[in-house]
Amino acid sequence: MAAGNGKPLGIIAGGGTAPLLVADAAIRAGRPVFVVGIGGEANPDIAAYPHEVLKWGQIGRMQSLFAKHRVTEIVLIGNIRVRPDFSKFKLDLGAIRIMPKVLGMLANGDNDLLSGVVKLLGELGYTVVGAHEIAPELVASVGLLGRRAPDKAAGTDIDKAMSAARAIGVIDAGQAAVVINGRVAALEAAEGTDQMLDRVARLREAGRLKWSGRAGILAKCAKPQQDLRVDMPTIGPKTVKAAAEIGLAGIAVEAGRVMIVERPEVIALADRSDVFIVGVAGNQGTRG
Amino acid sequence: MAAGNGKPLGIIAGGGTAPLLVADAAIRAGRPVFVVGIGGEANPDIAAYPHEVLKWGQIGRMQSLFAKHRVTEIVLIGNIRVRPDFSKFKLDLGAIRIMPKVLGMLANGDNDLLSGVVKLLGELGYTVVGAHEIAPELVASVGLLGRRAPDKAAGTDIDKAMSAARAIGVIDAGQAAVVINGRVAALEAAEGTDQMLDRVARLREAGRLKWSGRAGILAKCAKPQQDLRVDMPTIGPKTVKAAAEIGLAGIAVEAGRVMIVERPEVIALADRSDVFIVGVAGNQGTRG
Repeated sequence: MAAGNGKPLGIIAGGGTAPLLVADAAIRAGRPVFVVGIGGEANPDIAAYPHEVLKWGQIGRMQSLFAKHRVTEIVLIGNIRVRPDFSKFKLDLGAIRIMPKVLGMLANGDNDLLSGVVKLLGELGYTVVGAHEIAPELVASVGLLGRRAPDKAAGTDIDKAMSAARAIGVIDAGQAAVVINGRVAALEAAEGTDQMLDRVARLREAGRLKWSGRAGILAKCAKPQQDLRVDMPTIGPKTVKAAAEIGLAGIAVEAGRVMIVERPEVIALADRSDVFIVGVAGNQGTRG
Repeated sequence: MAAGNGKPLGIIAGGGTAPLLVADAAIRAGRPVFVVGIGGEANPDIAAYPHEVLKWGQIGRMQSLFAKHRVTEIVLIGNIRVRPDFSKFKLDLGAIRIMPKVLGMLANGDNDLLSGVVKLLGELGYTVVGAHEIAPELVASVGLLGRRAPDKAAGTDIDKAMSAARAIGVIDAGQAAVVINGRVAALEAAEGTDQMLDRVARLREAGRLKWSGRAGILAKCAKPQQDLRVDMPTIGPKTVKAAAEIGLAGIAVEAGRVMIVERPEVIALADRSDVFIVGVAGNQGTRG
């Protein structure tokens, strides 16, 4: 584990409150932090920590800031709402210097942005650590997250939905599945969890999925091969809202491998809408 | 196998040409046939065989017709466009007589229409056989169905798509998967194959799935537990049209366990739109 060793921690921060939680947890563990906020994304509250806001492509500036603060370990955390448009990058000298490596990576067909960024930071001499290694409270643990608990019928759906979510992870397709009264209603692939939930809503509206009262489970798991340091599955207020609107009974997440974004809001929403959230022990080893 | 034993064969016929193909195959094998056409669904060409058109619920009439023609073995085959509305059934005496059994089945939570019908026909003393046991030519065999053949890149996608389709069958979720250049783009569950293909089209339009030229595979398999006598997965002209419009390279089906509906039209469409169709040997035992 990387926490508690007194080493400075660099935080590359997208939006939301997760970067702040990571900074607080690091400071609690006696580590100085330096936050590089991503322009247009980072929460203004990073101002409470040593920080600077940079634009995409200011890699040389990032390197000199991290060097100045003796940062060699980095966490990447927070939402990115606007996918960066590489053609509009303002490349500084540091960025231009690593361009041959970037082009080499692209030529090798490495088209997964996140794993590319991790590799690149590695090439620049940084170690990327997972936000959950610094702030384990970001991640679901085993047990209930709100007031409501699953009944016995929901328990059967939880097992089946978790199995389904794991099965599609094994084939590298997706992270989430919906099971309603024993029937697999939806499996996630390229469309993502939000659109999958939207599909379940429309199937119910069209009368192709029928149930009464609250029933059914959204399950979410990490894929076995997922790099949890930078690409952990998440649920957040939007997920809970969607589950409640569809009429699902609850949400099951793989404990230790799924991040709860905006946890207080998630819990408040779940309690208010009578949706339960439960962390279930996975059979996957943890990583990182 | 049920073919060639000279026993009369009853055919309960929905729409399309498949019931006619089954009747022809039975006659070729020396079996008399009697066709019960489902009103509003059956192809008028069943008039070429001993037949009668019945409404849903005329179970007593069906029984006396089958008794008169000494039918004890039945095939259920053909499209049902309009799902029967049980509340509008004209129940004849035979239907009323079996109502206690129907109600018992419903009370037991047996809400799968087809397996219910099979069970009911069994209770009435009939043996239900698969259309593919009478007319094996309805089913995909190993190899190419049209002119176009997969190239090497498509071969990799075929393997991955077939694995994905099998994996979701094992969890009883669905029959079909789409893999494009190594990535699982979509997995079928309650929405069905047509809506899943529609989703892939929309993800491509939205720029969330990108590829150039024709690429990607729709794979379709039977679930391990599927009752192939009455519920065989199918592909038909609509499937080929959708695959062509999306820009997929081809369609892979599990040989021996997927029915090709309207085969001549399927092949003509595939050839015209440069989509290949290939039957791939499954690792599932055949059933029935």
